Amino acid sequence: MTGGVALERSSPGRGDPRTLFERARRKDRGALARLLSFVEEGGERSRAVARLSYRAEEPYVVGLTGAPGVGKSTLGDQLVSVALSGWPEGVPGPAPLDQVAVLAIDPTSPFSGGAILGDRARMQRHATDPAVFIRSMATRGHLGGLALAVPDALRLLGAVGFPVAVVETVGVGQVEVEVAAASDTTVVVVTPGWGDSLQAAKAGLLEVADLFVINKADRPGASEAARDLRQMLSLGTERSWTPLIVETVAATGAGIEELWDAVARHRRHLTETGGLGAKRAERVATELKKVLSAVFERRLDELAGSPGYAAALGDLAAGRCDPYEAADRLLGPG
Amino acid sequence: MTGGVALERSSPGRGDPRTLFERARRKDRGALARLLSFVEEGGERSRAVARLSYRAEEPYVVGLTGAPGVGKSTLGDQLVSVALSGWPEGVPGPAPLDQVAVLAIDPTSPFSGGAILGDRARMQRHATDPAVFIRSMATRGHLGGLALAVPDALRLLGAVGFPVAVVETVGVGQVEVEVAAASDTTVVVVTPGWGDSLQAAKAGLLEVADLFVINKADRPGASEAARDLRQMLSLGTERSWTPLIVETVAATGAGIEELWDAVARHRRHLTETGGLGAKRAERVATELKKVLSAVFERRLDELAGSPGYAAALGDLAAGRCDPYEAADRLLGPG
Repeated sequence: MTGGVALERSSPGRGDPRTLFERARRKDRGALARLLSFVEEGGERSRAVARLSYRAEEPYVVGLTGAPGVGKSTLGDQLVSVALSGWPEGVPGPAPLDQVAVLAIDPTSPFSGGAILGDRARMQRHATDPAVFIRSMATRGHLGGLALAVPDALRLLGAVGFPVAVVETVGVGQVEVEVAAASDTTVVVVTPGWGDSLQAAKAGLLEVADLFVINKADRPGASEAARDLRQMLSLGTERSWTPLIVETVAATGAGIEELWDAVARHRRHLTETGGLGAKRAERVATELKKVLSAVFERRLDELAGSPGYAAALGDLAAGRCDPYEAADRLLGPG
Repeated sequence: MTGGVALERSSPGRGDPRTLFERARRKDRGALARLLSFVEEGGERSRAVARLSYRAEEPYVVGLTGAPGVGKSTLGDQLVSVALSGWPEGVPGPAPLDQVAVLAIDPTSPFSGGAILGDRARMQRHATDPAVFIRSMATRGHLGGLALAVPDALRLLGAVGFPVAVVETVGVGQVEVEVAAASDTTVVVVTPGWGDSLQAAKAGLLEVADLFVINKADRPGASEAARDLRQMLSLGTERSWTPLIVETVAATGAGIEELWDAVARHRRHLTETGGLGAKRAERVATELKKVLSAVFERRLDELAGSPGYAAALGDLAAGRCDPYEAADRLLGPG
């Protein structure tokens, strides 16, 4: 089934969202991939997916972010394998977890065949593990772009039964901060040496990191990197949660269980302090604002194509009204 | 009367726009300054000024732009003195002109006492010349900022009887391009040496310049600057109007008549080719778009403060609706 991802993406025309949704709940991965394509495309079918998804429990979202080359995707693959063993004791949620999803966010290649090939290669690493669903995600037409498509996708994953989702960024820049905003636990991945930590600091990731991973920790400089990070963190503002620093070697799996334990500790902290509820409330507030802005922008575009708009322009050019009157006439009473 | 500018600005509370407008048409400079304060402040009184202004003939707008220190304000003062002698033969419009206005746009100091003192100093240079009205302009609350306040101010100047207005930028950056967009003839001012021309090129001013002034042309390098400009222009796209280059020494008045003649030549070109109408039509189209964006943004702010918004957020947090439904409910049918 999982091998069908690429195929399904290339023919997103078929299928009714409700039927696909029911199939996806019964772990039909092809159906889920199609629904995610709808989310990417935006429009009516994307709205239908949003309507089908919202009542469900949201998945617990672990965000993996960091510069290209630090090993995020290998780390993500390892993390989901460990995650399937379930949350440690004391953390709410099922143990073991029956399925885990990975969303790889790629804002740089909206129609990337490469990303899809990447999906397939990664699926093969989990070929014996039908509980793992991996999907790269770009945006093709979603209203508001990735900032709105990602929360939609995560709600969908929760609605079809994923208790945990790992979100990775493929690209760099603004998307990293947006992925962090969509995550319950944000993991910033660096490698030994000053460069990555400094980059993370510059990108504003020190402030959003709940955990740091020093990956490729078998290379020289890992303990120095940890010390540097601790020093940078000590300069920041006091927070109720002090980011944990975990050393891993994703290629061998070393440190991955410790990473999952650290995620669990952060989740327990969020649950105990009420931080999870606050974080999610803030998230829906941000999301609503973005939806409203996007709707306004679309209405503006629609307005600009209307016959009334041309008439208003004519009146303006002829000095028959002022621009505020013209705007009032076009918009109707506010 | 003109000495009252600063005084009037400090007490903008008094006065009914219509009464002030009638007084301004009878060349009451204090009333005009008050109306311009209304425009700066935005809100209802600004709308009233817009309604009073729009039917009138717009002034012919000469924009002066360029880096700080090139002598724009001295050049502007000299230019209005020459402009008062009227348009040369063959250019539509009254000769001599009975009054000319200078708007000095200062986006960097919204409440600048310095700017007002500057106004007063400049008014004194024209103390014997009641036909010259000089006003600096910032934005305090106008919907859409200077991009919308400047066209409003220019329409007002036209409505109270100014056939010509000179607009100068005090600041740098985006505002230069906006002033160019509001002008019929855009004059880019540089001084001898590579620096200014290069800056102008970087700021995208080569594309918007109708005329170039090499001010302080008594310094070494003036003819090289002219040659460099010509070279840069020859690399650009073919246009129906080739920007003229005028050398001036604003401090002595040398070259100012040539500059005014160049402005007149450009105006004649615009009139003959229909370019003036096209330029102004494009301008109102841009203005309408900006007004609509600003209105949308304000509505978004109003919405965010409404009781329905809090209720929608509650429903979202509780998973009782999706963000698109919440947006639809808040916005009503599009």
